[in-house]
Amino acid sequence: MRHRLFFILPLLLLFFVTDYLHADDGYRLWQRYDKIEDAAKLNGYQQALAEVVFEGNSPTLLVAQKELKDGLSGLLGKAVPVSQRITQAGAVVAGTPASSALIKSLGLENRLKPVGDEGYLLLTTDINGRKSTVIAANTDVGVLYGTFHFLRLLQTHQDINSLSVASAPKIKHRVLNHWDNLDRTVERGYAGFSLWDWHRLPGYIDQRYLDYARANASIGINGTVLTNVNANALVLTKEYLVKVKALADAFRPYGIKVYLTARFSAPMEIGGMKTADPLDPQVQAWWKEKTNEIYSYIPDFGGFLVKADSEGQPGPHNYKRTQADGANMLADAVAPHNGIVMWRAFVYSEHTPDDRHKQAFNEFKPLDGKFRDNVLVQVKNGAIDFQPREPFHPLFGAMPNTKLMMEFQITQEYLGQGTNLAYLAPLYKEVLESDTYAKGKGSTVAKVVDGTLDNNKLSAIAGVSNIGTDRNWTGHQFAQSNWYTFGRLAWDHSISSEEIADEWIKMTFTNKDKFVDPVKTMMLNSHEAIVNYMTPLGLHHLMGWSHHYGPGPWIKDKPRADWTSVYYHQADENGIGFDRTKTGSNAVAQYFPPVQKQFGNIKKCPEKYLLWFHHVPWDYKTNSGRILWDELAYRYTAGVDTVRQMQQTWNTVEGMIDEERFNHVKMLLAVQEQEAKWWRDACLLYFQTFSKRPIPQGLEEPEHTLEYYMQLDPKFVPGI
Amino acid sequence: MRHRLFFILPLLLLFFVTDYLHADDGYRLWQRYDKIEDAAKLNGYQQALAEVVFEGNSPTLLVAQKELKDGLSGLLGKAVPVSQRITQAGAVVAGTPASSALIKSLGLENRLKPVGDEGYLLLTTDINGRKSTVIAANTDVGVLYGTFHFLRLLQTHQDINSLSVASAPKIKHRVLNHWDNLDRTVERGYAGFSLWDWHRLPGYIDQRYLDYARANASIGINGTVLTNVNANALVLTKEYLVKVKALADAFRPYGIKVYLTARFSAPMEIGGMKTADPLDPQVQAWWKEKTNEIYSYIPDFGGFLVKADSEGQPGPHNYKRTQADGANMLADAVAPHNGIVMWRAFVYSEHTPDDRHKQAFNEFKPLDGKFRDNVLVQVKNGAIDFQPREPFHPLFGAMPNTKLMMEFQITQEYLGQGTNLAYLAPLYKEVLESDTYAKGKGSTVAKVVDGTLDNNKLSAIAGVSNIGTDRNWTGHQFAQSNWYTFGRLAWDHSISSEEIADEWIKMTFTNKDKFVDPVKTMMLNSHEAIVNYMTPLGLHHLMGWSHHYGPGPWIKDKPRADWTSVYYHQADENGIGFDRTKTGSNAVAQYFPPVQKQFGNIKKCPEKYLLWFHHVPWDYKTNSGRILWDELAYRYTAGVDTVRQMQQTWNTVEGMIDEERFNHVKMLLAVQEQEAKWWRDACLLYFQTFSKRPIPQGLEEPEHTLEYYMQLDPKFVPGI
Repeated sequence: MRHRLFFILPLLLLFFVTDYLHADDGYRLWQRYDKIEDAAKLNGYQQALAEVVFEGNSPTLLVAQKELKDGLSGLLGKAVPVSQRITQAGAVVAGTPASSALIKSLGLENRLKPVGDEGYLLLTTDINGRKSTVIAANTDVGVLYGTFHFLRLLQTHQDINSLSVASAPKIKHRVLNHWDNLDRTVERGYAGFSLWDWHRLPGYIDQRYLDYARANASIGINGTVLTNVNANALVLTKEYLVKVKALADAFRPYGIKVYLTARFSAPMEIGGMKTADPLDPQVQAWWKEKTNEIYSYIPDFGGFLVKADSEGQPGPHNYKRTQADGANMLADAVAPHNGIVMWRAFVYSEHTPDDRHKQAFNEFKPLDGKFRDNVLVQVKNGAIDFQPREPFHPLFGAMPNTKLMMEFQITQEYLGQGTNLAYLAPLYKEVLESDTYAKGKGSTVAKVVDGTLDNNKLSAIAGVSNIGTDRNWTGHQFAQSNWYTFGRLAWDHSISSEEIADEWIKMTFTNKDKFVDPVKTMMLNSHEAIVNYMTPLGLHHLMGWSHHYGPGPWIKDKPRADWTSVYYHQADENGIGFDRTKTGSNAVAQYFPPVQKQFGNIKKCPEKYLLWFHHVPWDYKTNSGRILWDELAYRYTAGVDTVRQMQQTWNTVEGMIDEERFNHVKMLLAVQEQEAKWWRDACLLYFQTFSKRPIPQGLEEPEHTLEYYMQLDPKFVPGI
Repeated sequence: MRHRLFFILPLLLLFFVTDYLHADDGYRLWQRYDKIEDAAKLNGYQQALAEVVFEGNSPTLLVAQKELKDGLSGLLGKAVPVSQRITQAGAVVAGTPASSALIKSLGLENRLKPVGDEGYLLLTTDINGRKSTVIAANTDVGVLYGTFHFLRLLQTHQDINSLSVASAPKIKHRVLNHWDNLDRTVERGYAGFSLWDWHRLPGYIDQRYLDYARANASIGINGTVLTNVNANALVLTKEYLVKVKALADAFRPYGIKVYLTARFSAPMEIGGMKTADPLDPQVQAWWKEKTNEIYSYIPDFGGFLVKADSEGQPGPHNYKRTQADGANMLADAVAPHNGIVMWRAFVYSEHTPDDRHKQAFNEFKPLDGKFRDNVLVQVKNGAIDFQPREPFHPLFGAMPNTKLMMEFQITQEYLGQGTNLAYLAPLYKEVLESDTYAKGKGSTVAKVVDGTLDNNKLSAIAGVSNIGTDRNWTGHQFAQSNWYTFGRLAWDHSISSEEIADEWIKMTFTNKDKFVDPVKTMMLNSHEAIVNYMTPLGLHHLMGWSHHYGPGPWIKDKPRADWTSVYYHQADENGIGFDRTKTGSNAVAQYFPPVQKQFGNIKKCPEKYLLWFHHVPWDYKTNSGRILWDELAYRYTAGVDTVRQMQQTWNTVEGMIDEERFNHVKMLLAVQEQEAKWWRDACLLYFQTFSKRPIPQGLEEPEHTLEYYMQLDPKFVPGI
């Protein structure tokens, strides 16, 4: 008998490990509870964690309890029992004072108060002489968040022997925006199609809905806008609302509220009215009634997101009303139900001759203080449109009497779409840490967004989702890190890019240093690499027409000038770049004076924004000592070179993770290298027609002619 | 130490089992190699199977070797070693005489000859006094097929102690037709979107391509048409051909050839020509050159599938040429490369006043003998269009000098789409076993298709794929059984529906009788249930406009009469049904006399085809003794009742399989029950306006009014 066990056990383990190493489709995201491989760590955790003590049975608490049980059992490689009271040392006690007499008995009121409605405490403490770990919160969802935090500590091999953590989100609404259409296409989606299988709702609840909610809860995301900002009013009809209700019911235990985009002309399209004028009492009444109907299905419906008067969407302009008129109408409809309205500032018009960069500011700044209390103006991180790099949007700090929220793009519309590895924490952090000087030095964008600068309790942040039906959710394995990053920064924007990458890598792949260190470096360099091979030195909006895939610096003569590339790069024989100083569009004047002075002065302007704000001669001497043309060529080349380094790095980690994910990334890096070269070659050849200068010696020459690149015309590019 | 092992082992097992029971997304299809639970069976297999002996390293043999190793290791719960020679009793020796000296030494030539290029032998034999199992074939792919057969025996708990199996496919080309568009939508697709991620090809080879190929190989499918019959010529451009090549390379080791649909007007659309006239020498030259180009990328390219002169597709009619002229032009282009052309017989025109049922026959019958040797005319199972039930197509047997192939629809366009459980083996078998009487009694459709009736070596069968990006591949868990069924019947159409269901259930779920028996009954009744609640007694084509979802018996006044429902049911105050006898369209005359006599005589016509061939008075007395109207009501009701029985059956198996798949099916059965009621109520209410008779006593009354059902207008239905 003993012999037999010795025989079977290693084989079982072998089979498990073999399976793990050979096939992993990435579906589990960062939520992996495979047994910890580090023997010392494992042993320590096994000693410290013996049972789960849980009281209460709300849907959210049951989710937390299952998570804790499954997580511990998996990570520790032993079945961890759940009990209603402590039976031994090493208990993990989770709950709220309301749900758990044991938690209540710990007298944590004073420590719990500051963590509010969603925060939690993680404490190591003695209970009746038994060393225990406590996950305590004021609310059930706080317990769930604390559970995920605690499991993350184990997944990343942290010390848990003397925990004293208090955590609460810095931003109240942490929301994904799905640009998902009702036909399941996803605008700017590069991970397959929409998760929402509207046709089979409400009867069929796909397991992915629950796994999606669970993943979001694990990083603190508490809201989801299900539908595209380029909206379809049909989602507001009863036929669809019963489907939305089914999703809301599925998400609720995970603390996730559902929002919808409201098409401004809905009263006409589905309400049979002749106008959608926001000041028309009948229109207002229609929206109130419609909103009441929605809340009758979904009592905790979050509210509306609106894109109006932009890129063909209807809006208050159609009736000569202001954005505030439009937003307030909807705000009044949702206010009785404690709903909010997120009103996008992404408004610009082809009929306005002014620099597109300035238009949102010009439109919204005069409306400061005119929005209802439950309106948030949703501002993209930059003034153009999610370019590989943009200076922060001048509206941040400029509307002290209005709640501004941040809109980041997680999906990589302009960052290599479905094939490029781009870790976006550095981009998000660069924006959040930018200083607006609105109330003097230190008035960062983050403080505007989290409400601390203007003392707003209502705050929000949105991320345009990169999630789709692909088995790994995000198309590119590493794009999972951006979903993760968005959630983590929405909870606490002070975490560094390095910390987030570290966590994510360890949870997603392995804790082995030989993997974590090089892969982290690769991730941290990845965004800058893309900026370099796409739009270095402040260039922007050079991509292919409509689908935005690949280079198109030659794009011109389109229905709207501000949808062409030549409008933005302004290359001519003298130089390149958009003059946004006093001698040009003077967009810099929209920033507070200290920023103006920096961005507006070619000598002080950070080189990364140089061509964003200045038209610069080809022979202008850059920081490196090289003239602008040469520097441009060097940057483009450096971008490609970094991708090649990434390939080399990745090759060194072969065998440390499963073959499937390894090969997935390897293949995509090879595609990225090709696309990086394509960008470099096409842009340099094109700009060379203006600069009339050679590619600097020692740099790789373009592979094809400019004509070759200009005739490329990729078909059926995803995301449109 | 001993204590510890005793502690860990059961926990490991527990964890594995727990995981298995709680989360299974169906991705593995019928290819599950979980450890056999039946202790006696397991023990027997473990004794009998000790090692895998494999020589040769072609890509196909390596695939077979891995399958055998992984399969045995998983099913037996022990790592089964691979060796190059026999080291112990219980060897599984696999190979061809060419790849394996050991196989060659067994002197199997005479036994191998009859199994041909794809067949195999499974033999229990003594080799040097050691009892061994031999998987032998003439070709590498034969070894792969034999491997899958052998594993299936274990998965279904068969006795393997004295194997003596010789198996060869009855049909040469066993092909899936994907109606996949280049934008990844799938016409009549209800399982998400197209697997082919054209945008990321050729650089990115999705793991799903390999898993798709492996699944097909496991059931003997050896070809795949990648693109929709409603074709886009772009797939024939270099930009796409390099992508097609990447797929062909991925599929090749699994014995799967790639085919493309050829848009007839491609020479004009992508070739810059002014005509696509098949008799124009320049057009012929263009196709030859294009074909040579394709073969330069894909040396084993299978050939073309063409839909011409049908539903808006261009074709030889545009130039007053025949279908043979069109097919032969392409056949001549692929012939030097041993390619084939599959030319669809689904040709009918809105300009032809004749019964649509007759048009394909009228068009093709006169062309018998005029097609090149490498052309197969691809005929749908019935003369209309994949209805829930159709009598067999009159072309079968009618073209003895032409190769006819079968086209079945696996995707459930008319059979409940993505939400209804329909096991289609009974439908396929009913058609295949139909007797055409072409050469006297016993001239079954199957014999036409497999070539034995007319002595054709070239034979083929196509199934319109139900595969998409859904995690479980086919949307509905049970729709996997239809993919499986198609492959199994394509290999051997003599297998019964019961046998196939038995195999599939055991491989997909469990071998437990308490599960297998009731679920098999449920599957075997499922097709008839749908016929009953959609189109009983020979009714057809009653579904919703364009998307074909839900009932639409009232559809009329559309651009084409033969796309309306009233054209097909002909209901009036006197009765219902399409008179296709001498007094009507006389479509029955297209069948051979013994069939004519049966179908054409209301007294002899099988009741399941009654309203297909006859316009029948409402008070006509049916076999049950009930008048037609009452019988119709009974049938509709019986369909709904069967679904309710299926729900009850499914509830009894809770706990016998994983929760995820159990719930998936349970939810969909509830949806199906609703849809069945919808069909019944809408159709009975509508036909009642003609019959003017009450719903028979004791039958459930419709839930809503006819007006209610007529105003339902589902949006964004998948599959169009």
